Amino acid sequence: MEIIQRAISISPKSRGCHIITSEIESELPELRRIGAGIAHIMIQHTSASLTVNENADPTVRDDFETFFNRLVPEDTRLYKHTMEGADDMTSHIKSSILGSSVTVPVTGGKFNLGTWQGIYLCEHRNNGKNRRIIITIIGE
Amino acid sequence: MEIIQRAISISPKSRGCHIITSEIESELPELRRIGAGIAHIMIQHTSASLTVNENADPTVRDDFETFFNRLVPEDTRLYKHTMEGADDMTSHIKSSILGSSVTVPVTGGKFNLGTWQGIYLCEHRNNGKNRRIIITIIGE
Amino acid sequence: MEIIQRAISISPKSRGCHIITSEIESELPELRRIGAGIAHIMIQHTSASLTVNENADPTVRDDFETFFNRLVPEDTRLYKHTMEGADDMTSHIKSSILGSSVTVPVTGGKFNLGTWQGIYLCEHRNNGKNRRIIITIIGE
Repeated sequence: MEIIQRAISISPKSRGCHIITSEIESELPELRRIGAGIAHIMIQHTSASLTVNENADPTVRDDFETFFNRLVPEDTRLYKHTMEGADDMTSHIKSSILGSSVTVPVTGGKFNLGTWQGIYLCEHRNNGKNRRIIITIIGE
Repeated sequence: MEIIQRAISISPKSRGCHIITSEIESELPELRRIGAGIAHIMIQHTSASLTVNENADPTVRDDFETFFNRLVPEDTRLYKHTMEGADDMTSHIKSSILGSSVTVPVTGGKFNLGTWQGIYLCEHRNNGKNRRIIITIIGE
Repeated sequence: MEIIQRAISISPKSRGCHIITSEIESELPELRRIGAGIAHIMIQHTSASLTVNENADPTVRDDFETFFNRLVPEDTRLYKHTMEGADDMTSHIKSSILGSSVTVPVTGGKFNLGTWQGIYLCEHRNNGKNRRIIITIIGE
């Protein structure tokens, strides 16, 4: 049993959801030696999130953005925490609805996701910066 | 410390949330030898989800279905991704709100859930198929 | 590689979200000897939740309470499961939207959270009781 832990930086993304599965895997050459285990992937920010969803049709990511903007309206009258603009508190809320981390199984040296699954980084700010991610793999 | 990883197939469920705690435990005879650890349970699909909630009163699962149908309306004018019908994009959204995986503690050879907690599989499609689940247990 | 598992009891909190990061860390002296790993933290109840969010400005927690009360209205006509009052079913729903557990990386003997991240316990009941939490740390 071994543990591998890495911090990686993801370059700024436009607002919305982006598939980062291969960007993460390419930073983890050690993954290949893990026959069975788990990978925990955490974003160290409270205005962007990680989730697992459909990896093929880009309109799914478009619809995510549309839906969550309607669910969490950018109306500053609804919130007290608006120092950084209308996309400030809404980003915090979206980050807790979608989540700050995902855990995925590792099998045969790779993330063991379903055929249609990918890891999304959802940037909720209009002007997101670099996002820091901590990956911890436990397996053998 | 040891690691146990299994893929299981869950037979088709009707739309809505179903308690699958004992269905999963019965597939894991090795669980009994884990004194302390965690179990990560992941569904390899993006139109069904796993969550932990109340395990006793079936009306809780009814209310889940009613609430999330209202939260994520099946109105195809709201979405671009509608190839597979009105329950297509809504299922993807519900799967990210509720989540694709749960992690639960393992203690004394069993899932260490609260008295009222069970593991739900929520089928968001009208005609869900077999659902594949990967379980990874790490413990000693 | 070692595993540390502890059950702790959190004293009753008022309705709303509370930062419990240091309350949990203070119960875990063993954390200091973990150089790299993960900590899984699970609440054994279905009417309170755990999530990671902003740790500095208290108005973020106020806005969480306001937002989720609007998202999940306390109108008993909307639900069947209302035995324990208007805050009964709504608490179950909120607990699955926000989640029953969080997993965070452990690095250098501490939770490896971002500068602005804290662990929230969100009490969804009007009269929450003691809440039991199971923490499992795996690392070396």
